[in-house]
Amino acid sequence: MAQLRIALAQMNSTVGDLAGNAESIRRYAAEARQAGAHLLAVPEMALTGYPVEDLALRGSFVQASRAALADLARALDAAGCGDLPVVVGYLDHGSAPAEPGPPKAAVSAPPKSRPQDAAAVLFRGGVLISSAKHHLPNYGVFDEYRYFASGNVLPVVRVRGVDVAIAICEDLWQDGGPVAACAEAGAGLLLSINASPYELNKDDVRYALLQCRAREAGCALAYVNMVGGQDELVFDGDSMVVDADGGLLARAGQFTEELVLVDLDLPAAAGAAEPGSVTDQPASNGMTIRRVPATVEAAEPYPAVPGVITPRVDDRAEVYAALVTGLRDYVRKNGFRTVVFGLSGGIDSALTAVISCDAIGPDNVYGVSLPSRYSSEHSKDDAAQLARNTGMHYEVLPIGNMVEAYLKTLADLGAPLTGVADENLQARVRGTALMALSNQRGHLVLAPGNKSELAVGYSTIYDAGSIGGYAPIKDVAKTLVWELARWRNAHALELGLTPPIPVNSIEKPPSAELRPDQKDSDSLPDYELLDQILDLYVEGDQGMAAIIERGFDPALVRRILGLIDRAEYKRRQFPPGTKISVKAFGRDRRLPITNRWQEG
Amino acid sequence: MAQLRIALAQMNSTVGDLAGNAESIRRYAAEARQAGAHLLAVPEMALTGYPVEDLALRGSFVQASRAALADLARALDAAGCGDLPVVVGYLDHGSAPAEPGPPKAAVSAPPKSRPQDAAAVLFRGGVLISSAKHHLPNYGVFDEYRYFASGNVLPVVRVRGVDVAIAICEDLWQDGGPVAACAEAGAGLLLSINASPYELNKDDVRYALLQCRAREAGCALAYVNMVGGQDELVFDGDSMVVDADGGLLARAGQFTEELVLVDLDLPAAAGAAEPGSVTDQPASNGMTIRRVPATVEAAEPYPAVPGVITPRVDDRAEVYAALVTGLRDYVRKNGFRTVVFGLSGGIDSALTAVISCDAIGPDNVYGVSLPSRYSSEHSKDDAAQLARNTGMHYEVLPIGNMVEAYLKTLADLGAPLTGVADENLQARVRGTALMALSNQRGHLVLAPGNKSELAVGYSTIYDAGSIGGYAPIKDVAKTLVWELARWRNAHALELGLTPPIPVNSIEKPPSAELRPDQKDSDSLPDYELLDQILDLYVEGDQGMAAIIERGFDPALVRRILGLIDRAEYKRRQFPPGTKISVKAFGRDRRLPITNRWQEG
Repeated sequence: MAQLRIALAQMNSTVGDLAGNAESIRRYAAEARQAGAHLLAVPEMALTGYPVEDLALRGSFVQASRAALADLARALDAAGCGDLPVVVGYLDHGSAPAEPGPPKAAVSAPPKSRPQDAAAVLFRGGVLISSAKHHLPNYGVFDEYRYFASGNVLPVVRVRGVDVAIAICEDLWQDGGPVAACAEAGAGLLLSINASPYELNKDDVRYALLQCRAREAGCALAYVNMVGGQDELVFDGDSMVVDADGGLLARAGQFTEELVLVDLDLPAAAGAAEPGSVTDQPASNGMTIRRVPATVEAAEPYPAVPGVITPRVDDRAEVYAALVTGLRDYVRKNGFRTVVFGLSGGIDSALTAVISCDAIGPDNVYGVSLPSRYSSEHSKDDAAQLARNTGMHYEVLPIGNMVEAYLKTLADLGAPLTGVADENLQARVRGTALMALSNQRGHLVLAPGNKSELAVGYSTIYDAGSIGGYAPIKDVAKTLVWELARWRNAHALELGLTPPIPVNSIEKPPSAELRPDQKDSDSLPDYELLDQILDLYVEGDQGMAAIIERGFDPALVRRILGLIDRAEYKRRQFPPGTKISVKAFGRDRRLPITNRWQEG
Repeated sequence: MAQLRIALAQMNSTVGDLAGNAESIRRYAAEARQAGAHLLAVPEMALTGYPVEDLALRGSFVQASRAALADLARALDAAGCGDLPVVVGYLDHGSAPAEPGPPKAAVSAPPKSRPQDAAAVLFRGGVLISSAKHHLPNYGVFDEYRYFASGNVLPVVRVRGVDVAIAICEDLWQDGGPVAACAEAGAGLLLSINASPYELNKDDVRYALLQCRAREAGCALAYVNMVGGQDELVFDGDSMVVDADGGLLARAGQFTEELVLVDLDLPAAAGAAEPGSVTDQPASNGMTIRRVPATVEAAEPYPAVPGVITPRVDDRAEVYAALVTGLRDYVRKNGFRTVVFGLSGGIDSALTAVISCDAIGPDNVYGVSLPSRYSSEHSKDDAAQLARNTGMHYEVLPIGNMVEAYLKTLADLGAPLTGVADENLQARVRGTALMALSNQRGHLVLAPGNKSELAVGYSTIYDAGSIGGYAPIKDVAKTLVWELARWRNAHALELGLTPPIPVNSIEKPPSAELRPDQKDSDSLPDYELLDQILDLYVEGDQGMAAIIERGFDPALVRRILGLIDRAEYKRRQFPPGTKISVKAFGRDRRLPITNRWQEG
């Protein structure tokens, strides 16, 4: 057996910020070196950020990633970390280098060469070995066949007498490939670098997967994941180390940047490895096992420190943390400092407000009450109370005069507004007023629309619920909005603090208050029912017959499915927001707008 | 040799309208039968429409497509077309049937089974043979690895003594696969069914490709393509038949629904084919050649009619027709009848107006002048003149009172608007007013923004140029907007009609008129220069160094690339519009919003 102290950097990369990401890796390497680690791993594409989308197809970006990797290797060496093998995810060119030229093709065509989602081991100022992801995900939010060429090499690096095999993200999620080759290689540790986006329940599935793959690979498994937000995606970290039997040795927190240190007793590799040697061996599944030594030092005994297993939190706490992280990183990484949104006294904007305050601090959060003649007193009171509870900024901007000006002008034109057109006007005047405030002051506008509303189109396109740069609760169904609000208040009580959300905002029947005594329930079914059907149709992709079979009223199902289908055009123009469910609207669910298909 | 009269239905399918698409196919079959055709082909996915996107992943939809195919086979037989083999593109399940269940997976995962983009030969009331697309495109606007399993069978159907091989779309664009197997099968005709989206210059490439593939396959090649619009895509038709040497025998029009009839003298197949027999033969590239006879009738001589070769039109006429078709089908297929948009007197809204009038008739087109205190008299005159020239509706809705109401309310709040915030407010008040009109009257709102403006973010998000359901000239660069306007006027003159667009709208320096004497050139480089850089960066995906190497001013290039990168968030919320270029914003070019990468 040999002792190995490994370090996993659960870091937060920013897409395109090669210098900033490299600097973070340097800091983690210094910390790992200081802590006596023998090996450091950072996440998949940690150097470029993930996902880089079509930047992967731009030759200049691929070259910049390669150059940044070489610079990083030299910088690590210069900083005294040269003897620490550092496994770094980056973007590499594939078999044929992606040249800056040639000029554009006459018509759309597949790219002439494809880059690779690669892992390099940096050692003594250079790249010791590099390889590319074998299994490419191409479902859900992933489009990796669009970008990457698949790799076929399993690198096995001898570190202090232990053979460490390296795999990348999806390589663990699909059968065969690197895990099978790793077993065949007789590695002592399988190291997996990841950029695995958060979804509710994914942590449970992930842990079970690691246990299963460790047993298949026949060795311990170290898994390092990214944290932080990138547009719709948020990475939850949840880095883990399991032993060869699947026993949990260490587990990092979720949504936290941290360096995980674990001492492992691992089987020593047989035979000597000559420095500088590279040996290839074919695996029976067609991959190539490529062995290279990172160091010839023998393992020495040292006092091992126990791995830390961070306890899992409640599902609601987890979702809430995802929403806070997603918003915080959108604001921060896009250079904003403050946010603004309409504060109606209702539950959606209340939840948006507390998430915002937790993400960037109440002093950077601006809530604006935009009352119309239909706004109830209690709504205005609830909004003001929320602001007092949280310490966020609060202003009142009555929309009456602006609405009147439109009504008069349109009536003069011979088009007096009635019914829904009148209601929608109020909603859009709020949006326009918020955009004006944002323009004048440089706030990022937030759209507080929820998933249920977005699903059935129960929102006005370009209103204060739909406009802005980011939509924090876009993937949160209405029943979960209430749950999270209750959880956030209870959590405050646990900490001995004032619950931030007024009970009335949680308890009162939801209403857009666009006409006297309007209630959501005037035109929508009960949200409990709606969200169940939504879950089956959107997240489960069930057809109408299958949904009705579960006992729902056929007429209701038909109506809701029709509403969902017809609202696709609104969803296309909705701002991005944090994905928390198995299927978020946006890149996760891609349907045509022009679509005559009707279930049933 | 044997004579074969083939019919190609260049038809316009609607996504999801299985019954309507089947009815169109029945009509074409009756017409083909009437005309004495021996074989009819309709486009790829003609039964379901294309692209169906994530509908392909819904089991209920796959089952509905299969059921509609079986119904169509019976209906054709019942209508006396049973003896006419009809090649129909549809959606089939793959190796494992796509069941409606099971309920949603715990986390995102690849679908358990994948459907196929298939071609069936309907004959005597049933499906004689079916096969699936071999090469799946997964670049540009295509995501077919997300959806489909690849097929590996080349069907060869004996029709009146001629062996007809069938391929689907991308099968022709990539080397090897069905074309190679077709050569090996010694087929007399290669029939290719397509849903190939329009791009400028694609018709030239397509013709050259067909010549090349016919020679490779060693036989004549018949190519049938879809026409019509589907969200961002428009299919141009351009169906063709070439002989084994690549000589053009027939060519259909672009953007026209038509039935192409061609008489071919083709090599008779060797050996007899027993009715009902199916024989498989391995091709050397791993595909299976599957032979089946559709009929045992011998070819009989008949007076052949010459194929019609529709002449190609000028590039500008072609793009213009694409824009008209894209808009017309978006309006029609989504159940709208009328459109509305702001008519500023400028060139973008003028071009949008004439496209709209040509697409759906001037009586269904509503232009609204929304003058502010900065609007010049000539702008209002130009807008009115355009309306008179075209016969469209025209209204004037001054925005002054509405803008004042906002300014006063915001000043009262202590946030008086200045500079860009003041300019943007005017622009958004126009948007809100148009949405109100649309709500009241049921018009579809159009966004007249052009590609250059959308590229550099020279537009106000949610203003009258950016809101609405469809953006007809979204993929048209500003210099091409002018070219098309000039072409449209010249075309009117050629027909002896009044040129619709006032010369002043074309000639005057472009301006948003949001402050006194404002000109686009105050803040943007000359559009000629801008569009050249845009073309290299967006369509050509060139890095900054490569663009500067061509002789552009480095500071200018850096500035424009920065503007383009920073405007990504605006593009995400822009309505869909017709793709005409090799790379349109939207599904064609997918970049992160959160993106620190800077070229150079």
